[in-house]
Amino acid sequence: MSDSIGVGMLGYAFMGKAHSNGYKTLAYMTWPPPLVPELVAIAGRDEEAVAEAARRYGFAEHVTDWHALISDDRIQLFDNSGPNNLHAEPTIAAAEAGKHVICEKPLGRDAAESYETWQRVDATGVKHMCAFNYRFVPAVRLARQIIEAGEIGEIKHFRGAYLQEWGATDDAVWRFDKAAAGSGALGDLGAHVIDLARYLVGEIRSVAAEAATFQAGREVDDAIESVVAFENGAVGTIEATRFATGRKNAFRWEINGSKGSIAFDLERLNELQLHVAGSTPAESGQGFRTVLVSEADHPFWEHWWPHGHIIGWEHTFVHELHHLLTAIRDDGHVAPHGATLEDGYRAAEVCDAMLRSAEGGGRESVTYR
Amino acid sequence: MSDSIGVGMLGYAFMGKAHSNGYKTLAYMTWPPPLVPELVAIAGRDEEAVAEAARRYGFAEHVTDWHALISDDRIQLFDNSGPNNLHAEPTIAAAEAGKHVICEKPLGRDAAESYETWQRVDATGVKHMCAFNYRFVPAVRLARQIIEAGEIGEIKHFRGAYLQEWGATDDAVWRFDKAAAGSGALGDLGAHVIDLARYLVGEIRSVAAEAATFQAGREVDDAIESVVAFENGAVGTIEATRFATGRKNAFRWEINGSKGSIAFDLERLNELQLHVAGSTPAESGQGFRTVLVSEADHPFWEHWWPHGHIIGWEHTFVHELHHLLTAIRDDGHVAPHGATLEDGYRAAEVCDAMLRSAEGGGRESVTYR
Amino acid sequence: MSDSIGVGMLGYAFMGKAHSNGYKTLAYMTWPPPLVPELVAIAGRDEEAVAEAARRYGFAEHVTDWHALISDDRIQLFDNSGPNNLHAEPTIAAAEAGKHVICEKPLGRDAAESYETWQRVDATGVKHMCAFNYRFVPAVRLARQIIEAGEIGEIKHFRGAYLQEWGATDDAVWRFDKAAAGSGALGDLGAHVIDLARYLVGEIRSVAAEAATFQAGREVDDAIESVVAFENGAVGTIEATRFATGRKNAFRWEINGSKGSIAFDLERLNELQLHVAGSTPAESGQGFRTVLVSEADHPFWEHWWPHGHIIGWEHTFVHELHHLLTAIRDDGHVAPHGATLEDGYRAAEVCDAMLRSAEGGGRESVTYR
Amino acid sequence: MSDSIGVGMLGYAFMGKAHSNGYKTLAYMTWPPPLVPELVAIAGRDEEAVAEAARRYGFAEHVTDWHALISDDRIQLFDNSGPNNLHAEPTIAAAEAGKHVICEKPLGRDAAESYETWQRVDATGVKHMCAFNYRFVPAVRLARQIIEAGEIGEIKHFRGAYLQEWGATDDAVWRFDKAAAGSGALGDLGAHVIDLARYLVGEIRSVAAEAATFQAGREVDDAIESVVAFENGAVGTIEATRFATGRKNAFRWEINGSKGSIAFDLERLNELQLHVAGSTPAESGQGFRTVLVSEADHPFWEHWWPHGHIIGWEHTFVHELHHLLTAIRDDGHVAPHGATLEDGYRAAEVCDAMLRSAEGGGRESVTYR
Repeated sequence: MSDSIGVGMLGYAFMGKAHSNGYKTLAYMTWPPPLVPELVAIAGRDEEAVAEAARRYGFAEHVTDWHALISDDRIQLFDNSGPNNLHAEPTIAAAEAGKHVICEKPLGRDAAESYETWQRVDATGVKHMCAFNYRFVPAVRLARQIIEAGEIGEIKHFRGAYLQEWGATDDAVWRFDKAAAGSGALGDLGAHVIDLARYLVGEIRSVAAEAATFQAGREVDDAIESVVAFENGAVGTIEATRFATGRKNAFRWEINGSKGSIAFDLERLNELQLHVAGSTPAESGQGFRTVLVSEADHPFWEHWWPHGHIIGWEHTFVHELHHLLTAIRDDGHVAPHGATLEDGYRAAEVCDAMLRSAEGGGRESVTYR
Repeated sequence: MSDSIGVGMLGYAFMGKAHSNGYKTLAYMTWPPPLVPELVAIAGRDEEAVAEAARRYGFAEHVTDWHALISDDRIQLFDNSGPNNLHAEPTIAAAEAGKHVICEKPLGRDAAESYETWQRVDATGVKHMCAFNYRFVPAVRLARQIIEAGEIGEIKHFRGAYLQEWGATDDAVWRFDKAAAGSGALGDLGAHVIDLARYLVGEIRSVAAEAATFQAGREVDDAIESVVAFENGAVGTIEATRFATGRKNAFRWEINGSKGSIAFDLERLNELQLHVAGSTPAESGQGFRTVLVSEADHPFWEHWWPHGHIIGWEHTFVHELHHLLTAIRDDGHVAPHGATLEDGYRAAEVCDAMLRSAEGGGRESVTYR
Repeated sequence: MSDSIGVGMLGYAFMGKAHSNGYKTLAYMTWPPPLVPELVAIAGRDEEAVAEAARRYGFAEHVTDWHALISDDRIQLFDNSGPNNLHAEPTIAAAEAGKHVICEKPLGRDAAESYETWQRVDATGVKHMCAFNYRFVPAVRLARQIIEAGEIGEIKHFRGAYLQEWGATDDAVWRFDKAAAGSGALGDLGAHVIDLARYLVGEIRSVAAEAATFQAGREVDDAIESVVAFENGAVGTIEATRFATGRKNAFRWEINGSKGSIAFDLERLNELQLHVAGSTPAESGQGFRTVLVSEADHPFWEHWWPHGHIIGWEHTFVHELHHLLTAIRDDGHVAPHGATLEDGYRAAEVCDAMLRSAEGGGRESVTYR
Repeated sequence: MSDSIGVGMLGYAFMGKAHSNGYKTLAYMTWPPPLVPELVAIAGRDEEAVAEAARRYGFAEHVTDWHALISDDRIQLFDNSGPNNLHAEPTIAAAEAGKHVICEKPLGRDAAESYETWQRVDATGVKHMCAFNYRFVPAVRLARQIIEAGEIGEIKHFRGAYLQEWGATDDAVWRFDKAAAGSGALGDLGAHVIDLARYLVGEIRSVAAEAATFQAGREVDDAIESVVAFENGAVGTIEATRFATGRKNAFRWEINGSKGSIAFDLERLNELQLHVAGSTPAESGQGFRTVLVSEADHPFWEHWWPHGHIIGWEHTFVHELHHLLTAIRDDGHVAPHGATLEDGYRAAEVCDAMLRSAEGGGRESVTYR
């Protein structure tokens, strides 16, 4: 039997639900699991709600102060699924208490906070992961494999947009609160685009951006639009918006290379659009194919079903946590396929450069501390 | 807290995995669950394999003789995920022992066996379900709601095809063994098409069919092609094949009504194509819309995620088992949204009529015993 | 300069407009044209309307009796774009007067009439064509080339449907008049499906069909649904309906072969869906590609634009008439890429077999006189 | 009968072919034509080639010096289909000789040249048009109507990209010659995006751009990437590239408004993707519909076929020239649906601002002389 690992979680809302499902599912779907997650305790401020979450997801205990997780020796992995302003301090504390950590994105509310978190966590020697879960979509991993194999040649363009539609609301959610969230669509959605741009294309050299706040009285950006130039010479655009009416969760990107192209849409996350120039005989060689990413030799697919039996958004967390537990078990690397806190920090530097450009009007270089 | 229900399962392969995942997931995702499944025991002939399955899925015990499940008083629900030739006897025995039953499709290897199973189980008064899980795709249930609300008017056409591509194999699997499976693509795939045709359009009055066996030496049909006429006057086609190269799991159907049309493809199971004539102003009124079925008020969606965060094939089993447990808890009806063993039997009559027509060459009426 | 050929046309409505545009366009787009069409005269019963048609399309003269075209020595090609009940007599008369003929489909109102027309025209030695224009869609011709090259292997399935939506009308058009049209959706739309099935797959051995007339008081079929078996062992379905709400002109077909598959939809006539199993390296090999049929080496494309600059429905007639004029100039064959009157007759035998099956209930063999 | 108008054309290559086809087709398809085009003469430097073009397209004469067109009194409309460096002088000369003019895009090689051309032509009082033909795609015009009717509310975003793939060539074509073309992908493709952004959304206030030249030794941009901010508060991106492998002629744009969204792809130019929030009852209200733009009351469709019988890229020129001839006949306005030379100039100012931004690194305001 696999060894077990004690998990303590901060937060029980959207991400808490997704991560909990991930731990529970990986224990039998990724069989045998690298480590068997023991759900030790979950923390949240509302006692009634967190108590119900504990019952629901099978955590043995609940606490209303996250410090209790830090001091709990049964916990070897700290899962930070809380809001952005609760990322830095608990994550650092957990790591300094010797616990491995996974923290939701964006890592911090700005690059400085993200840098501090990364540096202090990294210094402890624990495994750390920033939960950029879209690296764990089978189609995204397959795209990375195709690119690494040189099948699409040198990359010329990246155009990525994360489009949602729910921004025109008067609801007071923490995501609109600058103190809690740091930024708006940029940190929430744009950070995902930036992370996949880095994962699939490479480091971003400079940006030139516009930000817009459409809703009166709102402190954070509703949309960010940016030109990007990569260190390898590719150029393109990155967008994030909560005002794309009709687009529910459309994280779309396309990469054009000298020999082929790849395109993706999260609303059809089981599919990868792939064009490889001249790959087939005669007149039949042109055109994007719709690869239904579900073959036995496709990434992560060994854990699931016969081909064509598609999986859902939540499965990304199963893959992500499986990856993290494997790294912990083997004392292996989270990178390059898992995002580390360094990746969280680097995304934050790009975000900050976009905000500087949007405010100042000039093209901004991306530099790292 | 919810009451619990003891589950005994026969079979641990493809369907056993899918059902096990369903029981485990519904316990926290459909919160609070109607009944908490207790996984009491799982049966299979290969002791090593079934023992591992028990460990993997969390069944407390494993047995190598399904009769042990029947005599186990801790079990109130018998889940038959075994091959077709193990559907009738264990399912009847379980019901006659007072256990609720769910049996995989096709219910029997022919209509006679299916009839016998239905009649004997129904006579015991237990709840019974035939696992036509595609009734529990959110988009399928939404289609049913749209049809029932009259939004597409009187139905004129149904064209359904279940297309897979794996038939050209020399592997000896039980699905090619007539004694074990009863039929080929017809019972495996065609039964699903027939069930949704009945669920969405109504009873089938007559069929005229061709069957084909492409692989030399194979006993069962590789493909079935049929014209169908419904009691309500609609006409159409039903197909099932394992020789549609490139189609992984393409269960596709389209329904045309006097006021609108609906289309679906299982490879994009989160989407429903919907056209409603004249539903919108002026020149913008035409065209099929792609409904991403993930709104808070869409069927089953309360259990999952914000809209646009799509779900997978396996989620149908969560919905299906949730439905069954609710019916058991409330002493309610499995029908009409859940398929009963009567639905399993009725599908079998249509299958048999198709085989008679394919052999004899004449149009065959569908009649029930 | 190219030689010229005198054209006389019967009919100036939908097909007359399409053919006229074809003659005028081919003279400069398929450069140099095989023969330069001289539009000598156009015939129709309504003098005012036919006079305007002559002015509009550039026919030198108009006549109200088609016999005047037959006796006009300036005419070497008789174009029959009239209704179905005016196909046989004028076409035979023209051929017997030594003129080449092109006749709209369906060739006759039944197989007997079609046979008589074919036989008498063929006996004269003129070139003859039945205007199954969809053979001249670039994507359809490309499909034929791919199949002939063996790229998709042995054909297992054909599923074709021609779906329109305008059937629920009280308008009295000749297409609903049995004496004028012969049949309904079958001859109008189904004949096209049958012709492409024959062109792409091969001869049809037997059919088993249902016909439906949804509109009260109508004499002809509103929909035909049929199972088909081909001489080469493939099986499939053929449908035609005027009651597919929301489908404007959806002539869709899919062919599954042992090595690949092809699919097409007339509403996106510039595209061919193509899957060739195992055609590409490693993990990127799966999936249907959308071939935008517009490359310089794609069929007919030499006449048009840079790739990606798509063409329209009407262009099929340009290709068709170009093909016919080339055969006339070179004393070459219309077949196999152009449909001859024999093809028109053979489609009619399949149509008649479907009607016999729909009426009698039995599977009907297709036999030729 | 309609009056006639004498046409003189400069250029007989790609655009000359497209315009010639437009004049010939409109004479019978847009019946009765506003004016009957008389193809008087065509000019080109290569006598053999221009002589053949005259024969092919039916121009009565050919000349090797465009000045001959200016002095020809039989010509009332000067059609400039030549390369960019031949736009200004002949167009101005024709107008100053009292001829109406249509000039291909981009109007000039930069804003200054475009301004001069517009000003001098406009001062003569002739009708003038810049051939932004994509305003004459039925789906584009329908989009404009939908926006003007307020159906998608206030516009928040425009994201437009014109993607082609042919840039990696060593061929020496005038489009890569800075002196002849002015710019690369920007003027060729980007100008179309800018024009539709202005036509559908409004004036552009500022831009921030990157340009890339991927091919060694090339003088002009291979790709332009820009953020744009509109005067009405909308923000978005504009791209143009000749290095999007696999994209043949993918001019794609999406507009998000407060109440709905519209999307378009030139490779499927007969379709408009339209989402209108809350437009339909209950749970069926969500989702983009694929409007097949071919209804009798859709823009330009009166001239063509029954719905679903799609048209091609070249038809845009028929509509464009029909529009121009109507304005000439009626002494009416070319604007707002037809682009005037002022529109050509305004697009040039946006292009120049993008180039300044790409070079200087700062956000650039768009100002007009």
